[in-house]
Amino acid sequence: MLTLLWRVHIFLGVSDLVLYSYFRSSASFRVRIALKWKELPYEYKAIHLLKDGGQQNAGFYKELNPIGEVPTLVDEGRVISQSMAIIQYIDQKWPQKKLFPEDLFTRAKVVQFCEMINASIQPLQNLRVLQELEKRFGADQAAKDNWTIYFIERGLMSLEKFVEAFSGTYCFGNSVTAAECFLIPQMFSSRRFKVDVSKYPKLLQVEEACMKLKAFKEAHPSQQPDAE
Amino acid sequence: MLTLLWRVHIFLGVSDLVLYSYFRSSASFRVRIALKWKELPYEYKAIHLLKDGGQQNAGFYKELNPIGEVPTLVDEGRVISQSMAIIQYIDQKWPQKKLFPEDLFTRAKVVQFCEMINASIQPLQNLRVLQELEKRFGADQAAKDNWTIYFIERGLMSLEKFVEAFSGTYCFGNSVTAAECFLIPQMFSSRRFKVDVSKYPKLLQVEEACMKLKAFKEAHPSQQPDAE
Repeated sequence: MLTLLWRVHIFLGVSDLVLYSYFRSSASFRVRIALKWKELPYEYKAIHLLKDGGQQNAGFYKELNPIGEVPTLVDEGRVISQSMAIIQYIDQKWPQKKLFPEDLFTRAKVVQFCEMINASIQPLQNLRVLQELEKRFGADQAAKDNWTIYFIERGLMSLEKFVEAFSGTYCFGNSVTAAECFLIPQMFSSRRFKVDVSKYPKLLQVEEACMKLKAFKEAHPSQQPDAE
Repeated sequence: MLTLLWRVHIFLGVSDLVLYSYFRSSASFRVRIALKWKELPYEYKAIHLLKDGGQQNAGFYKELNPIGEVPTLVDEGRVISQSMAIIQYIDQKWPQKKLFPEDLFTRAKVVQFCEMINASIQPLQNLRVLQELEKRFGADQAAKDNWTIYFIERGLMSLEKFVEAFSGTYCFGNSVTAAECFLIPQMFSSRRFKVDVSKYPKLLQVEEACMKLKAFKEAHPSQQPDAE
């Protein structure tokens, strides 16, 4: 019944989902993949992380997201932030094409994979962190690059090793999972930070397979309304 | 049936759970709370993050945890790391005294709260990050303290605001959730990093209530076999 109502919604072109996103933010990219994967229409609201001293620090946005980060999802007026919370919510509310496997142990490994990016890599390449390195320690571009490359390589090496244990087209066999929602944006930002990704053949292979899929193509930073 | 078997296991004093932990690590503390909350017996294996150049970098441990971080849980020979993955796994496998609420939106807010600590605060106070600040930028103790205090205060301020929206003894009303598994270790490490926690009265109140509970007391760093 709920699915039917949702389909009517889609038919009428009405969307109750609003995504606050920055085209280049890897956490925003993750959530866009999940939304596109589930074929959920949403209204895109751009939050520019550099303009106006960072629009994520604006009062109206801080009301939605007190820590001043993108993305934020609003579903029927209910506000959720943090990409892991949003993607798990989406996967439970719209269970078609599951992103988290049913089997408890496999599910745990998928969450672990995502968190290796979410909690162990991405926070160290975060814009705010790089700004603080510059402000506090006078880090120039080269020093900031070395910092991000160090933390990203350490992470990608572990992910490559992790994925080698599984065979198949994607990280966990032949189905897309949340792991790809996190990995593909990390590959994108790794290149942006001048990491030599050729050292991670298995991750590259997963990326190549994903980038043939409509959801991943449409979620890509270059396809967003605020792309530069 | 599974529950019965498990009870027999407990009765016989046999535990298939092994936790690799460091007493002071806040991510280890989170998982210990969840295990104690579920009243699951486990074998404690200490990984000293400073001794022997960091035991987390030892070959045998890197086999279990390629990124070289604590904690790691082994359940019947199956290895899981990343505290969020472990706690969600524990909560699904042993569903008594649920840590993640059934209601989808409330569950999402609990995950969001946890991730604000897991992905936005803790990674910046991580030992490895502080070591890199020292190595790369010659950061002395005061500079490192200022760095951690900045990121922790920014996070705790958001958490305090977040929790103010809910009434009750704990973060999300009158039941313990995963939010407390993440918050209490963060409060502990915030003090260790000389943060003035008196600025967060609601968080302190939740901490005080939790520290009256057996699970939280037993999971505390001071109660671990490797406590110094």
